[in-house]
Amino acid sequence: MKTYTVAVLGATGAVGQEMINILQERNFPVGKLVPLASARSAGKTLKFRGEDVTIGLACDEAFEGVDIVLGAAENDIAQKFAPAIVKAGAVFVDNSSAFRMDPNVPLVIPEVNPEDAAQHKGIIANPNCSTIITVTAVNALNKLSPIRTMTASTYQAVSGAGAGGPIELMGEVDALSKGESYAPKVFPYQIAFNLIPQIGGEQVDGYTSEEMKMQNEGRKIMHLPDLKVTCTCVRVPVVRSHSISVSCHFDKKVSVADVKAAIANAPGCKLVDDLANKQYPMPLDTTDQDIVFVGRIRPDLTDECGVSLWCCGDQVRKGAATNAIQIAELLIK
Amino acid sequence: MKTYTVAVLGATGAVGQEMINILQERNFPVGKLVPLASARSAGKTLKFRGEDVTIGLACDEAFEGVDIVLGAAENDIAQKFAPAIVKAGAVFVDNSSAFRMDPNVPLVIPEVNPEDAAQHKGIIANPNCSTIITVTAVNALNKLSPIRTMTASTYQAVSGAGAGGPIELMGEVDALSKGESYAPKVFPYQIAFNLIPQIGGEQVDGYTSEEMKMQNEGRKIMHLPDLKVTCTCVRVPVVRSHSISVSCHFDKKVSVADVKAAIANAPGCKLVDDLANKQYPMPLDTTDQDIVFVGRIRPDLTDECGVSLWCCGDQVRKGAATNAIQIAELLIK
Repeated sequence: MKTYTVAVLGATGAVGQEMINILQERNFPVGKLVPLASARSAGKTLKFRGEDVTIGLACDEAFEGVDIVLGAAENDIAQKFAPAIVKAGAVFVDNSSAFRMDPNVPLVIPEVNPEDAAQHKGIIANPNCSTIITVTAVNALNKLSPIRTMTASTYQAVSGAGAGGPIELMGEVDALSKGESYAPKVFPYQIAFNLIPQIGGEQVDGYTSEEMKMQNEGRKIMHLPDLKVTCTCVRVPVVRSHSISVSCHFDKKVSVADVKAAIANAPGCKLVDDLANKQYPMPLDTTDQDIVFVGRIRPDLTDECGVSLWCCGDQVRKGAATNAIQIAELLIK
Repeated sequence: MKTYTVAVLGATGAVGQEMINILQERNFPVGKLVPLASARSAGKTLKFRGEDVTIGLACDEAFEGVDIVLGAAENDIAQKFAPAIVKAGAVFVDNSSAFRMDPNVPLVIPEVNPEDAAQHKGIIANPNCSTIITVTAVNALNKLSPIRTMTASTYQAVSGAGAGGPIELMGEVDALSKGESYAPKVFPYQIAFNLIPQIGGEQVDGYTSEEMKMQNEGRKIMHLPDLKVTCTCVRVPVVRSHSISVSCHFDKKVSVADVKAAIANAPGCKLVDDLANKQYPMPLDTTDQDIVFVGRIRPDLTDECGVSLWCCGDQVRKGAATNAIQIAELLIK
């Protein structure tokens, strides 16, 4: 069997670690794993298939001989190393937002637009976490009738802010239980028993960067250049799995029964929708899974051509690491 | 100064206790307080203005000589005693949902439709908690141009389920920290570090009773019989204060600047809207307050005649107890 040399750029972060786990879980044909990180972590080891692998220093030379680079680093790091990765002949599957809106870079959810991956010129971008979860769900609706507008409110877990998010939430809970104080570092305010209605900086018209991703990335992934999305992104005191309340409006009437059937048959989705028996998606149930749970499907009462639903997915896995490795799987098909 | 005999029906519950606190805080001219409860609590005492007051048994005879009854009991109790209250000549300001949609019963938010209170025939209903908070905010927009449709997603605190909600949340957090288990009783599933997208039973078309209140009560309070509302109600692991992400669509374009000015001048509202400086409403900041905080005001990107916003308010106070006492204040004006 052909095997591949796979580098993970940002191997020690939350998403990088999950990528390495998922390469093993999915039996990706890794001949050699090249974990890369900054000088702070280089030289340390991590386990891969039971063996110790030394973490290398992320530098231009590190990509020589690599087939696929899975990017789990911040935008500036992704931008810094992209030229060397492409020059080395590797394909860069990048989880940062640096290249997502670049017209030369495909933005791919394998269940939605796998064909776009083939158009790459060395870089394929992994979409934003809440966008992946929402679009994996609503793309099934888009196939019934093109989506014209979406109104989304997110309920985003603290692990979306990296490994420090859950540490801060649990640290605050522990401090509060002892009557002690805890100075937030990851989030601007206490997140325990609170909500913070800001993720990302202000981008345009009072919307944050995170909120605009739902529209801009959604347009590109679903090939809906005129899609209009209003999104409100909120951090909630949940450890893992993002949830989204979303209403989709179409050009024609779409029945709830058709939407339920479409979700039940959609790749990457699971229909969990039985209100009378208290069955609906919840973050605790989707944690550590790769499937987006979809439920509370009902007619939108503001528009006879609309449908409302609620979806949940593990944003570290399907919303980041798993999606990147699914893209790598498309590349080696 | 004229004083009034005020009964509190359900005096030992979360809302009943808060009503008694707020009567003191606001110096309501109580001549005599008549706290009423079931046989389980009758005979015990509670403090009012530093004095011990004995809790009476809720029964038809208990309302003789009472001027105002503040109802903080469930629907069945409200329905059971309403005839005796009206017969005794008292005015029943009821926080249950039993009479809210009765065409003979005004449904009042004092900042929104105080004039309706005067039409009462012995009963005035206090609206649903998340409806009060949302409508206190959006009524200022409705004055700029009538609201045609609203899309709302709620983030509702556990205290909305009564005094047992916070006990269950904190009990779960404590048990999880010790690796112990905790069997949920108030909520159908663990709420700590989770979200439950169901409040109330299924009412119509896959919507819960709580979700339909936003449309049906909103129509009655704002005198907008054709208002269409799609609402998704979600329980979140926050102790107190409900938050709502809402988009309002109008018949004509309404500017963000006008909305901000309207909120800044609206009774019962506080504009907290400066994203660049991380200023927006958060449940921790609104807890123990009577004002609805409103922020994240921006154009709705799906409709040029729309505006999106985020509001928070203490649902035990403004969403229940304070609103009821504000209604009582209208009665004695």
